[in-house]
Amino acid sequence: MNAEIIVIGDELLIGQVTDTNSGMLARELNTIGISVLRTTAVHDDAEQISQALHEAFSRVPLVLMTGGLGPTKDDITKQTLCDFFHTRLVPSAEVERHVRALYSDRPDVLNRLTATQWLVPEACTVLENRVGSAPLMEFEEEGRVLYSMPGVPYEAQVAMEEQIMPRLRQRFAKGEIRHRTVIVYGIPESALAIRIAAWEDSLPRYMHLAYLPADRMIRLRLTGMNPPEDVCLEAEMEQRLETLRPLIQEYIVAEADKPVEVLVGQRLLERGQTVSSAESCTGGRVAALLNKHAGSSAFYMGSVVAYDNNVKERLLNVSRQTLLTDGAVSEATVRQMAEGARRLLGTDYAVATSGIAGPGGATPDKPVGTVWMAVATPENTVAQCLHFRGGREQVTRQASVAVLLMLLRQLD
Amino acid sequence: MNAEIIVIGDELLIGQVTDTNSGMLARELNTIGISVLRTTAVHDDAEQISQALHEAFSRVPLVLMTGGLGPTKDDITKQTLCDFFHTRLVPSAEVERHVRALYSDRPDVLNRLTATQWLVPEACTVLENRVGSAPLMEFEEEGRVLYSMPGVPYEAQVAMEEQIMPRLRQRFAKGEIRHRTVIVYGIPESALAIRIAAWEDSLPRYMHLAYLPADRMIRLRLTGMNPPEDVCLEAEMEQRLETLRPLIQEYIVAEADKPVEVLVGQRLLERGQTVSSAESCTGGRVAALLNKHAGSSAFYMGSVVAYDNNVKERLLNVSRQTLLTDGAVSEATVRQMAEGARRLLGTDYAVATSGIAGPGGATPDKPVGTVWMAVATPENTVAQCLHFRGGREQVTRQASVAVLLMLLRQLD
Repeated sequence: MNAEIIVIGDELLIGQVTDTNSGMLARELNTIGISVLRTTAVHDDAEQISQALHEAFSRVPLVLMTGGLGPTKDDITKQTLCDFFHTRLVPSAEVERHVRALYSDRPDVLNRLTATQWLVPEACTVLENRVGSAPLMEFEEEGRVLYSMPGVPYEAQVAMEEQIMPRLRQRFAKGEIRHRTVIVYGIPESALAIRIAAWEDSLPRYMHLAYLPADRMIRLRLTGMNPPEDVCLEAEMEQRLETLRPLIQEYIVAEADKPVEVLVGQRLLERGQTVSSAESCTGGRVAALLNKHAGSSAFYMGSVVAYDNNVKERLLNVSRQTLLTDGAVSEATVRQMAEGARRLLGTDYAVATSGIAGPGGATPDKPVGTVWMAVATPENTVAQCLHFRGGREQVTRQASVAVLLMLLRQLD
Repeated sequence: MNAEIIVIGDELLIGQVTDTNSGMLARELNTIGISVLRTTAVHDDAEQISQALHEAFSRVPLVLMTGGLGPTKDDITKQTLCDFFHTRLVPSAEVERHVRALYSDRPDVLNRLTATQWLVPEACTVLENRVGSAPLMEFEEEGRVLYSMPGVPYEAQVAMEEQIMPRLRQRFAKGEIRHRTVIVYGIPESALAIRIAAWEDSLPRYMHLAYLPADRMIRLRLTGMNPPEDVCLEAEMEQRLETLRPLIQEYIVAEADKPVEVLVGQRLLERGQTVSSAESCTGGRVAALLNKHAGSSAFYMGSVVAYDNNVKERLLNVSRQTLLTDGAVSEATVRQMAEGARRLLGTDYAVATSGIAGPGGATPDKPVGTVWMAVATPENTVAQCLHFRGGREQVTRQASVAVLLMLLRQLD
């Protein structure tokens, strides 16, 4: 079945805040066979919210809504929901108790304005918001179901996982939906599409392939949904993948819908080995990826961000001669950086990057986007140079992912 | 005037990719007095795209569209635009020349599938896509104007800045719109709202105040739009701010719609001073913030990510005794980390963080979210402990911003 998402907030429509809630909600809904037909972002405005609600419910029976529940004047969502569901705001003793307990250690928060937080529409079911003061609300009227939750991403996520998903599972989880993802690297999207065109054309109607390019990787996502009754979807999808693999074997990095840093962490944990990084142009982004997930202290020891050449020389022991003759963005430098980090931080592996992130710093033979990267292993050191398109942020992000992909291959 | 944005892509509606294009487009449009009424995300589906187009044009005269232009099968946007504007796809010699030139160094990209890239609707004006192969298209029919651009964020940004904005400025830039932002830290949103309620209520009809909380900061954004003819909007807004400042003086961090790391960089550049970081729980995120923007090599030297205690001890010279008695998450440790980094990296300032990012690692007196942070200056070292709510990512992001705010105060 289909659902729609409405995200509310002036800040989204002037581009001051990026909406990540709708993606989180979509991922959760997909796991129980509910597809998102459309996401709509509207202002904190009664008429616009009301219009979006009417439109969404004209297409789907389930709507999830985030935002518009803060204690300031931006706030008109609750009243609009009352109008839509023909009810009125009433104080809730339960919500009041909850908010007072939540902020018992912060009396400055407990002032007269937050009293609006425990007004709730009479017709809704209030669900517990464990981590914030805005109420979670569930409405049901004539087959229409609506959930309203706070716009703060962490609060929305906890609300979805702990309160809304269990209720949706009970209510709606009927259809079957499965995703399988193959991560491909080193082939352009169009060449990949040609190579697997015949395979893709042969997919049954209940399977769909999507190309999701990002950071020079392409995630091929095969989705199976509501197969005929006699089909085991899981087995059928695996069989299709078995015929896909030989077509693109040399480009497959992993078969998992997991970020590269998670795959690296898993392999290091399996081997009981450790990693560190020495970073120039990526400036700490490889480090941040390596320790992004819980449990990383078991395999990630630390990093040196050697932005300045002096730091490369003194901490990582890159030779001054190399910096003078080859330059900071060179194979020799990046190899010495990786080996220096491996030694300095006492790890089994170390990765290193040095490049021209731009917009300045380019030379005729080293244009913006040129990045040398190296991986030092217990056996040897490998290095490569890649050229990334895009601005400073794109170059550093792509380079951070690329050097972890290099490391992943060394961990095969 | 109002515009709407339609973002196209299955990947957005299953939550595999976060849409950042609509925010970028909104920010650009706002600068010339065009407000975004609504953003709609739809699937790569002819009917849904067509429906969204009809709805958007029923409300506004200008629609910007991103995505749905890749060379793979996901691709039906161009045909849908042909149907909507009653035209047909024809090959464009100009687009073909452009694509061939763009990929002259990558023959693997130039294969038969990309030939679909130079098919364009006959009725549109094709604008140059300097950095990619998908065409930029401008449609105009009976007062309706539509721009279609690629979904790749960097391509969309270059398209908007270089091609679409100059044309929009000529066509539509009539109204006046101005934003002023005051960054406030250390006061909850509701307390702030009470404190400035009377001031806010006194604002003229053509001014609007928005509260934009993020990472424990609140950006107060005052927007003025289309004032009466005898009003100088700029002067009037400054006058309003002059009466606001005394109300919240002690919480104002800066008056600029700039990220904290940019403000830090500006002050360091003015002073000709340098900074480094020593990071445990933030794991490289402070480093990444400090070198996020072009020109940072003038003030940012490098960092040590000391995730492991052994690295804190060996590189940053944190005393083993301190680690044993006070623990890694303590005032003594974080002070020694900051001082160690300042010495090791030879900078005027150094910031340091050590905390419990979670979900593991908490103790009864140090719950998840506890972060000690320090700033070492040429004169002394200051330290504070903050408690952040949220998950691992929220804690580390908020802590990274908080330690830069601490540094900013030292640079006053």
